[in-house]
Amino acid sequence: MPPRPQPARPVSKHDYKAQVLLLREELLAVQQRLRHATFPVIVLFSGVDGAGKGETVNLLHEWMDPRWIHTHAYTEPSDEERERPEHWRFWRDLPPKGQIGILMNAWYAGPIDQHAHRVIETADFRRQLQRIARFERLLTDDGALILKFLMHLDRDTQRARLKALERDPLTRWRVTDEQWRQARSYDELVEAEAMAVRLTDASQASWSLVDGSDERHRSLVVARTMRGRIAKRLDEQARGRVARGRTARVLMGRAASGAAAKRRGTTAHLARLNMSRTVDKGEYDVELARAQGRLNMLHRKAGKRGVSTTVVFEGWDAAGKGGAIRRVASALDARDYQVIPVAAPTDEERAQHYLWRFWRHLSRAGRMTIFDRSWYGRVLVERVEGFARADEWKRAYAEINDFESQLIDHGVVILKYWVHITKDEQLRRFQQRQQLAHKRWKLTDEDWRNRRRWKAYEDAVDDMVTLTSTRQAPWILVEGNDKNYARLKVLQTLGDRLSKGLEGQ
Amino acid sequence: MPPRPQPARPVSKHDYKAQVLLLREELLAVQQRLRHATFPVIVLFSGVDGAGKGETVNLLHEWMDPRWIHTHAYTEPSDEERERPEHWRFWRDLPPKGQIGILMNAWYAGPIDQHAHRVIETADFRRQLQRIARFERLLTDDGALILKFLMHLDRDTQRARLKALERDPLTRWRVTDEQWRQARSYDELVEAEAMAVRLTDASQASWSLVDGSDERHRSLVVARTMRGRIAKRLDEQARGRVARGRTARVLMGRAASGAAAKRRGTTAHLARLNMSRTVDKGEYDVELARAQGRLNMLHRKAGKRGVSTTVVFEGWDAAGKGGAIRRVASALDARDYQVIPVAAPTDEERAQHYLWRFWRHLSRAGRMTIFDRSWYGRVLVERVEGFARADEWKRAYAEINDFESQLIDHGVVILKYWVHITKDEQLRRFQQRQQLAHKRWKLTDEDWRNRRRWKAYEDAVDDMVTLTSTRQAPWILVEGNDKNYARLKVLQTLGDRLSKGLEGQ
Repeated sequence: MPPRPQPARPVSKHDYKAQVLLLREELLAVQQRLRHATFPVIVLFSGVDGAGKGETVNLLHEWMDPRWIHTHAYTEPSDEERERPEHWRFWRDLPPKGQIGILMNAWYAGPIDQHAHRVIETADFRRQLQRIARFERLLTDDGALILKFLMHLDRDTQRARLKALERDPLTRWRVTDEQWRQARSYDELVEAEAMAVRLTDASQASWSLVDGSDERHRSLVVARTMRGRIAKRLDEQARGRVARGRTARVLMGRAASGAAAKRRGTTAHLARLNMSRTVDKGEYDVELARAQGRLNMLHRKAGKRGVSTTVVFEGWDAAGKGGAIRRVASALDARDYQVIPVAAPTDEERAQHYLWRFWRHLSRAGRMTIFDRSWYGRVLVERVEGFARADEWKRAYAEINDFESQLIDHGVVILKYWVHITKDEQLRRFQQRQQLAHKRWKLTDEDWRNRRRWKAYEDAVDDMVTLTSTRQAPWILVEGNDKNYARLKVLQTLGDRLSKGLEGQ
Repeated sequence: MPPRPQPARPVSKHDYKAQVLLLREELLAVQQRLRHATFPVIVLFSGVDGAGKGETVNLLHEWMDPRWIHTHAYTEPSDEERERPEHWRFWRDLPPKGQIGILMNAWYAGPIDQHAHRVIETADFRRQLQRIARFERLLTDDGALILKFLMHLDRDTQRARLKALERDPLTRWRVTDEQWRQARSYDELVEAEAMAVRLTDASQASWSLVDGSDERHRSLVVARTMRGRIAKRLDEQARGRVARGRTARVLMGRAASGAAAKRRGTTAHLARLNMSRTVDKGEYDVELARAQGRLNMLHRKAGKRGVSTTVVFEGWDAAGKGGAIRRVASALDARDYQVIPVAAPTDEERAQHYLWRFWRHLSRAGRMTIFDRSWYGRVLVERVEGFARADEWKRAYAEINDFESQLIDHGVVILKYWVHITKDEQLRRFQQRQQLAHKRWKLTDEDWRNRRRWKAYEDAVDDMVTLTSTRQAPWILVEGNDKNYARLKVLQTLGDRLSKGLEGQ
């Protein structure tokens, strides 16, 4: 039984005018306060055609200050959008902190439509809705306020409205074949919507059901809800009681705290590495050339087939990430890859969720993107140095797994390298750098500071490897005391996985 | 007679190795210094196929640190690129200050190819090259260092090389039908290139002709040129002698200085306005509804035809820009327009040319983009407050005209409104705002400060109107003492121009 909104109570024209006058002033005031807030407001509209989604959004723009609202409506993806994971186009449009973004026909539209028209089965639909719920939770955990309106209209009223629009020459253009096609699937759409509402209703991203049959009623309900919810949230923030990070339970079954590995009695992964592995110079030269040649060939094949590759490099300071990246890069055509060095975020990036700055770098089809440090900073440096709160970095494991699974579903091949060296080897390299004039710039005070926290980083690395190694994107630990050995291992495993990734295509 | 590079001197393998070793260290050192510099390096490669463009770029990536170089190669534009002016895709890839961007087949490739294959006449080709020269000067005036390499290969060597590549099964894939097509037009291509070099060789964006027949020779020449030119520029900057703004002569025939208008004996444009214009409430209500209805219809038509509209609002503080924008916006569907409020640039924007942040907001086809303040800030607030140096704001008039002409060539309809009020009217509105609680936030100390510079702004506005009113993008001065009159004038002229813009389609 689909959920039903409160039935519309007719509002007289006179009452409506008086209420709107007051509401507009309040909305503008709320909007002004919001500009200085540290959270964004994301507004979604769903519901059958004719229920007044477009009209209501237009009214909101008219009543509020259109400079601080941006509305995006999604239809067919552009070719640049199609070449990235499905959610890329929503990420690029997410409002920064302090602003309102209205997204029409965003992430619900596709799944609901596909399920209503039986393109996807219920099980698949449920899986998609669960992914959406996780995505919304990721945003609300970061502080976002998500308002979701489901505009309802009963079947007969919808048909009558579409027909009335068609009769009027001034509004005829608004009724398309697509709308009649949708109207024929009314029952299936309403049922799919009901299931979406049930599975994605959350405290910070709750659904408001609105009866769309009366224009004045629905306008007042939506505007009042917005004013009320945003004001409430601003008040909470002002009182310092922002409900954040309530969902840090995720995955905590697997790792209740950062000391997870320690409690298991071992810093398992790193300790198990055989750090005395080496390769002799003669073998290295031969194998390097072979591995680079193979990688070149495979990546050209990937380019032709539109298969993208994402490579993540993490590792201790002076572990040799840069050298390994250069050996990979020099096997490729400069036009086909990009190295993204990850340093402090820009202010545009700081105004968004921490994953936003990585989404924006996802490449078009067939290219390789190499991250020199990555989103794993959240569970490494941010965890160890306290830049992220415990609830923030704890839930990041699940968020990251979700992020990567979206890349994988899109066909992206992911590789994640932890380049490892022993503490003694690091000291040797630091000292060497200090002595070499042209390498001195590479050594900073921060490197020495990080070194003092070796143990804490070791725990963090171990949790990271445990919690984010998935079948399709496992961590590859690279024994890096011998640079040549490390470079070879990187090139060879990269070739192996790319080759495997291409087989599946 | 096409220009010819110094012929390749063969370099022995032994010499080459020794020189490369040294060069690489120097290149890396230069790159490190560059990271802290306040200018970007833009590297372009042109030349016939087979002359080694791709190979050289790959070598540069191998020799330098690939984290701080980004290479972009241009082939067919994506649909998102096609919907914007031609140069949009280059602007989006321009390197920020401190970095190197290598652009392959960028802005020269199209015109050269079209002229060689006689798609465009010589006169048209020349016009395009002149536009390119202005574009490059705009970048170099802002500090950018542009290095342009023309890789040369004589006809016979080219044929021999393509054939050799084709014979080897390992390199056969590199020779495409397109390359043979180009090879058949060898003479025409070389001739077009020669003309391009002649017309676009400038001190801060000079061409280096490189004989591509010998691989070692050409690699050394390109790498040495890069090292030398970047190092020289870094030294100049370190000594505070950066050659900037040498080209501020542009347009100065029309306005030798900021006091141009004054010397003409009048602040002509603003003084000539009849500021007592009003409209009565009854007429306003009727005409507003009519103008909004018309605008709605026209903009839907524009949307269908893919005609974009760019509307700029400038005006005194409290002149009523916001109110006018809301009347325009409320006539449109929220999905089809966007209001861009222009405030302080973000740090990503500050690392680029001042026009970059406006290029990035150009919309896809068929939408309206409304700028609440705009690129004209360069010749208004930045001029008056001294945020831009005199040579910077003086050359901005020409830069802005060029920018807008690119939009117009792409079919974008541009409207520019200066909303004018008298100084007395402004005072009245400021005082009113102070008294109304819900409007007090609108009034800042800055507003009072700007007011004290009324005369200076008046001169700046007058110069702006004189120097940037073009036939296709004239300034529309709006008498704003009566808000209703101003709103009506904005809506009606917007309708008129949109209607005219659609006629031409």
